[in-house]
Amino acid sequence: GDPAAGKAKAAVCAACHGADGIAVIPGYPNLKGQNEQYLVNAMKAYKNKERSGAMAMVMQPQAAMLNDEDIANVAAYFAQMK
Amino acid sequence: GDPAAGKAKAAVCAACHGADGIAVIPGYPNLKGQNEQYLVNAMKAYKNKERSGAMAMVMQPQAAMLNDEDIANVAAYFAQMK
Repeated sequence: GDPAAGKAKAAVCAACHGADGIAVIPGYPNLKGQNEQYLVNAMKAYKNKERSGAMAMVMQPQAAMLNDEDIANVAAYFAQMK
Repeated sequence: GDPAAGKAKAAVCAACHGADGIAVIPGYPNLKGQNEQYLVNAMKAYKNKERSGAMAMVMQPQAAMLNDEDIANVAAYFAQMK
């Protein structure tokens, strides 16, 4: 994906995952430097309702707003964070 | 949790997540330095069958073998990795 395009899309993600990719809430994952393909897999799992429970209640609506290109870009953005 | 006890339990995890917590398979997550509470949440989500799909097919049986203490220890082990 394109990290620059991802940065714009990821503004809302920063609220929980941190502008630096370090989660502001300990129960949520850090995304900084995470594997790009895993991030795509996780966002799609939420979007496709393969995940339920407390975290999914927050994440599913977020992922549902992203198309595949957005998902690839947001994943690239967090993956390249050093 | 107790990272030392977690290290022993985490031997099998290293097969996919890496002995250094960097996943050997790009579609799987790095665990190194991840939030301890998130790791507990994620393992419990798999154990409680709140996650389905390809990754869950691998992870659910793994998490099912762990009790709450194991989960806390394995989470502490990967979280403290620098």
